[in-house]
Amino acid sequence: MNRSMVRYLLAKLLLIEAALLSVPLIVSLIYQEDFKVLLSILATMGILGLLGWFGIAFKPKNYHIYTKEGMLIVALCWTLWSFFGALPFVFSGQIPNIIDAFFEVSSGFTTTGATVLPDVAVLSHSLLFWRSFTHLIGGMGVLVFALAIMENSKNAHLEVMRAEVPGPIFGKVVSKLKNTAQILYIIYLVMFVIFTAILWIAGMPFYDSIVTAMGGAGTGGFAVYNDSIAHYHSSLITIIVAVGTLLFGINFNLYYFLLLRKFKVFFGDEELRTYLGIVAVATGLIFLNIFNLYGSWAQSLEYSFFQVSEVITTTGFGITDLTKWPLFSQTVLLLLMLIGGSAGSTAGGFKVMRSLIIAKISRNQMLKTLYPNRVMALHINHTPLDKSTQHSILKYLSVYMMIFLGLILALSIDNNNFMVAVSAAASTFNNIGPMLGTAETFNIFSPWAKILMSFAMIAGRLEIYPMLLLFLPKTWSKY
Amino acid sequence: MNRSMVRYLLAKLLLIEAALLSVPLIVSLIYQEDFKVLLSILATMGILGLLGWFGIAFKPKNYHIYTKEGMLIVALCWTLWSFFGALPFVFSGQIPNIIDAFFEVSSGFTTTGATVLPDVAVLSHSLLFWRSFTHLIGGMGVLVFALAIMENSKNAHLEVMRAEVPGPIFGKVVSKLKNTAQILYIIYLVMFVIFTAILWIAGMPFYDSIVTAMGGAGTGGFAVYNDSIAHYHSSLITIIVAVGTLLFGINFNLYYFLLLRKFKVFFGDEELRTYLGIVAVATGLIFLNIFNLYGSWAQSLEYSFFQVSEVITTTGFGITDLTKWPLFSQTVLLLLMLIGGSAGSTAGGFKVMRSLIIAKISRNQMLKTLYPNRVMALHINHTPLDKSTQHSILKYLSVYMMIFLGLILALSIDNNNFMVAVSAAASTFNNIGPMLGTAETFNIFSPWAKILMSFAMIAGRLEIYPMLLLFLPKTWSKY
Repeated sequence: MNRSMVRYLLAKLLLIEAALLSVPLIVSLIYQEDFKVLLSILATMGILGLLGWFGIAFKPKNYHIYTKEGMLIVALCWTLWSFFGALPFVFSGQIPNIIDAFFEVSSGFTTTGATVLPDVAVLSHSLLFWRSFTHLIGGMGVLVFALAIMENSKNAHLEVMRAEVPGPIFGKVVSKLKNTAQILYIIYLVMFVIFTAILWIAGMPFYDSIVTAMGGAGTGGFAVYNDSIAHYHSSLITIIVAVGTLLFGINFNLYYFLLLRKFKVFFGDEELRTYLGIVAVATGLIFLNIFNLYGSWAQSLEYSFFQVSEVITTTGFGITDLTKWPLFSQTVLLLLMLIGGSAGSTAGGFKVMRSLIIAKISRNQMLKTLYPNRVMALHINHTPLDKSTQHSILKYLSVYMMIFLGLILALSIDNNNFMVAVSAAASTFNNIGPMLGTAETFNIFSPWAKILMSFAMIAGRLEIYPMLLLFLPKTWSKY
Repeated sequence: MNRSMVRYLLAKLLLIEAALLSVPLIVSLIYQEDFKVLLSILATMGILGLLGWFGIAFKPKNYHIYTKEGMLIVALCWTLWSFFGALPFVFSGQIPNIIDAFFEVSSGFTTTGATVLPDVAVLSHSLLFWRSFTHLIGGMGVLVFALAIMENSKNAHLEVMRAEVPGPIFGKVVSKLKNTAQILYIIYLVMFVIFTAILWIAGMPFYDSIVTAMGGAGTGGFAVYNDSIAHYHSSLITIIVAVGTLLFGINFNLYYFLLLRKFKVFFGDEELRTYLGIVAVATGLIFLNIFNLYGSWAQSLEYSFFQVSEVITTTGFGITDLTKWPLFSQTVLLLLMLIGGSAGSTAGGFKVMRSLIIAKISRNQMLKTLYPNRVMALHINHTPLDKSTQHSILKYLSVYMMIFLGLILALSIDNNNFMVAVSAAASTFNNIGPMLGTAETFNIFSPWAKILMSFAMIAGRLEIYPMLLLFLPKTWSKY
């Protein structure tokens, strides 16, 4: 274990977070907020600066790191960023409890969007902005962000990126790693700017447009008001948000192919087709199920499409009280929670690609009863998928399921509604945001459950393994 | 596809069911029941006899069958036995609806024990006996039973048995197939007789002792009264039933080793140790959770041990209203439902052995983050488990999960309680019996949901694949 390199890189990352805090600082100045808020942000920047400065004072002798160190850096970075990012809320007294603030900010960076705040009006403009800004940063992975701007040895980048980039298949366009990170980031930011502009043109206030677009682009879900998108009473805005978030749930490598005018690759992509197919079927099922509730087909379709888009992309903006929906619609949403967005997108969850592969494995296995001697290959995008990838996805499924069931069990201690326990587990572990079965916030849970869910959010975002490393005692032993 | 052999064997099996119906016929005579009941049983025997007689009239030219035919025979046999076994209930008017009666009898043969009867007092002695007698027959697999008494080509036995015998690992003692089936059946019946005797000595009426022992031996769960074991108000009987069913959830091959005085094999068996470990931990957790509810440590321990034993063995006798238990205890029971009993026992479910292997695969996969280059073998009973077995269990998990999630979704159409939908799916697919989240019976579901669950019970009992074959159109095409 190259400890000094881990320390060195983490110190650099803390300095980056200090720099990022200048954004809410500027917002605070623009809105001429209370001096206390300004001071809270400045104090946090000071602490981060000091720690970072100490950390980079001694350069490591050896810059070489392996996957293990990469994973550890990723896990520690997300945890530390969430912890230090929570300090302005605590210092300013807007979220006085550090556990609550830690939950809120890990929910931000992991683009979950789950909140412990019964009323977001307690937040000032700057800190509400910071909360949603963490979505924008976390969207592409905080390390990808950092690597896109950091100077360092190529090897360190590769190992760190391998440990963080979501999705089972490492993108095809990452030959020149730093360049790719930059290209993907530019696509992401341009889409975010367009998203903001369209929301603004559609009638949203400017501040709201930025905050909403950050929540949508990062597929996070923190909004400006308690009633989320319902606040604007505008079907136009609802549709724009639904379509917008849906676009951020698509593999960004595909947009790169679109830029290269490889339309066939884009439209022929099996994961994209599956993703859109699931959205269409789920919207249809929920539409039929809630039609009686609303009576109007336009409103039923709007609501069902919006909620399907918000849940499968793991964004989690809200439009209506889901507890009023029939159980069937809620169960459809719960299954979408387990699928999640596309690999290589800003979305979390198990991922469409993995679900697709699991579905194909299951289908082949079923057909084996009929043709026991036939050799059945599994193709993705007309390319056979090798056995070892299939097996590692099956193993991922079993690890995922174990942790998920454990989480449900732990959360069933705290409350007496099974739908709440299951959906809270699914919502945090898959970085969705809202719960089903209750109209309350995550404030109903006890402090230790909040800590557990904070780590579940980070574990879900990093696809489990890096976070496991953090909790294995062996990682911390000398030999 | 050797169709004439399939027809021939099924016809023989129908004749066996006709013969089995003589048992409730005798019970009916003993209790001098209404002539209508007697006639209902006789009419069913007549129909079965006639169909069977036609079926065996023409002997097949070729006696050779493959696994595919074996699977089809198994799937058809369970479905037909459930259908024809339901007729006495319909003819006698005790369960007038054929869908309800089919649900009840498939629940019997699959040793599920789920009922649609709000009040079992509608059943006469003979038909209540028949209902529980199906548990006893189904316990070791109806085909194993048939094969133990049938004369036929060895090849046909092997293929049929392979398709039916529960558990991922085909027993070690099946070198001489027919002998083994007979030995296991003798162990099973002797244990059943002892179970009956002990219950009788403990104070249960004789009729109740037989019915309860049949429900316990087959790990089914149909009881004599609506309030199940609670009816006897006896802690002694409660403990006897709990321990008794627990013994039937152990791999019967291990009892064979016990008879051979190979105690080391018995007590060293990893699945047995895991099984008992899970029972101990689950009992402890529930005990701590319900202690406040009852105040008495003796009663809390009795209830928690009883319910853990009933659920993990997939029996499902009841002692108290589980809806009054805190959610945590219910979630523990739900997880036990997903595990099920030991491979090679009369219990259903995913099986302890498979769960153990999945847990070991997950652990190895987690440790891989720490030691990426280490080759990690997976041992069961000190023997390395080959990769292909591991992978087929992982594939089984993915198929199992797909069907399970689909079942939850389908059952969420019918009611508005998520715990009911999930536990009904788990309870039928894993052959447990009771639901959580409601004190009602399965009568709350619509007819099509009852049909779906009937097939889910059979699919769960046969470990999915044979039933799939039944629903693949290709099975029925000429070529």
